[in-house]
Amino acid sequence: MAFQGERGAYSEEAAVQLLGEEIRLVPRPSFESLFAAIDEGLADYVLAPFENSLAGSIPRSYDLLLEGSLSISREVVIPIRHCLIGCPGTTLEAIRTVESHPVALAQCLRFLSANPQLRRLAAEDTAGSVAQVVLSRDRTRAAIAGRRAAEVYGGVVLLERLEDHSENYTRFLLLTASTETEASEEADKLSLVMKLPRGPGALHHALEPFARRGIDLLKIESRPITGAPWQYYFYLDLRAPIRAREMKSALAELNGRATEVRILGFYPSAQAPGELIKS
Amino acid sequence: MAFQGERGAYSEEAAVQLLGEEIRLVPRPSFESLFAAIDEGLADYVLAPFENSLAGSIPRSYDLLLEGSLSISREVVIPIRHCLIGCPGTTLEAIRTVESHPVALAQCLRFLSANPQLRRLAAEDTAGSVAQVVLSRDRTRAAIAGRRAAEVYGGVVLLERLEDHSENYTRFLLLTASTETEASEEADKLSLVMKLPRGPGALHHALEPFARRGIDLLKIESRPITGAPWQYYFYLDLRAPIRAREMKSALAELNGRATEVRILGFYPSAQAPGELIKS
Repeated sequence: MAFQGERGAYSEEAAVQLLGEEIRLVPRPSFESLFAAIDEGLADYVLAPFENSLAGSIPRSYDLLLEGSLSISREVVIPIRHCLIGCPGTTLEAIRTVESHPVALAQCLRFLSANPQLRRLAAEDTAGSVAQVVLSRDRTRAAIAGRRAAEVYGGVVLLERLEDHSENYTRFLLLTASTETEASEEADKLSLVMKLPRGPGALHHALEPFARRGIDLLKIESRPITGAPWQYYFYLDLRAPIRAREMKSALAELNGRATEVRILGFYPSAQAPGELIKS
Repeated sequence: MAFQGERGAYSEEAAVQLLGEEIRLVPRPSFESLFAAIDEGLADYVLAPFENSLAGSIPRSYDLLLEGSLSISREVVIPIRHCLIGCPGTTLEAIRTVESHPVALAQCLRFLSANPQLRRLAAEDTAGSVAQVVLSRDRTRAAIAGRRAAEVYGGVVLLERLEDHSENYTRFLLLTASTETEASEEADKLSLVMKLPRGPGALHHALEPFARRGIDLLKIESRPITGAPWQYYFYLDLRAPIRAREMKSALAELNGRATEVRILGFYPSAQAPGELIKS
């Protein structure tokens, strides 16, 4: 399973929670290389973050999902618990700089504001900054990352729960080659992307087949269409009704109302924030 | 008028196109300080980017607009034309590194891929990277930014139109203190943000008063609600009908269907990509 970032990243934590410690993990340096990993024969699965409950959607993931032909087969939600991690032998008092991904730094503003002696340094990713701090053996440096990064690189957790908001979760989607997709019996969530005709009422009209059948729209995301300024792709996450026939007829109606529809996946939903899907 | 970035930024270009060269410009280092500029008595207006036609919405702007109490009074759309800018005396052949904001670098991938000898360096912003290149007098360094940055800092434009896609525009909104807002006679666009009740059909139901009256939904954007995972604020941009009464009655109906509605502004729209609003 390919994931983005360094060993010990939150993505790795999500991967292990989803498929267990036995899974062979393939770290990829960028989102582009992550989404290409199946085509390149490097992995059977791709695990990509799509949304954080505080920062919102991760547009690059949506765009790359659309550009390729992978399908969603599972989702997993993990709580983001930021730790302050230093190299062995250091103490909280010795720390002078704190490095991490800018999003992680931004999610720990309360801690950072209360400790103005700490200089903030932007890094490529959370786990990678732990690797560098430990490697440097510099007792004045610390990084913000998940507990797993400390375990992977032999860092010391100096503080826990640095995040400003406790309701901090990231939703990851497990992607596979489309041909391998087979809807699980527990599938209850459907994701699609559509293009609409221009003009008043187009989105309202497209949502109507779902609303009429009581199918819940869990999320709508719009992304720009390259080359067509101020026109958008709409990504919908829908809660599938118990009777699959209902969803089928709603989708058939949608096809007449949208200019393009692509089903991205039909999969079991992670029921509640932080709750894992049953495997 | 406050804007984000350094002198010579695309934001400055938008500011000048909107209100002329006589405007007193107040550069602000971050989005947070930009949105606070009116409250702090530093500016009467704030100009903030909200959307790029390729990269999509700028979530930080949406979030900060919601957190404060500013209103939208105008919009302006400018074409993004990336130039390769070096210090005086350099030539294209001498360049070894190219620095700029990561989004600008990502929008010039065709040029960068065709020139693998050029090392890419991420910088804080486009204009600031020109300032640093010119200051360094290093003939092997170049930056990617708009033509205005070359003029402001005395840089040399080595190449023009580096951007991969020509349909590259950024939409800026001019914000003022809410009390000063007075709808212009040419106002034809209304922006609002709303919170919806949970359950099937909520968004469909909320859009119905507009769809029924033929009021065009130009854009819908969703942003997470802090502390309420997987619930969203919806930002709508609507094309106002000629008869203002229609919009008023649609908004009155929306109030009964949403749990919260805030009007963000009623203002003249920039009619077409790249076309400036009439001032």
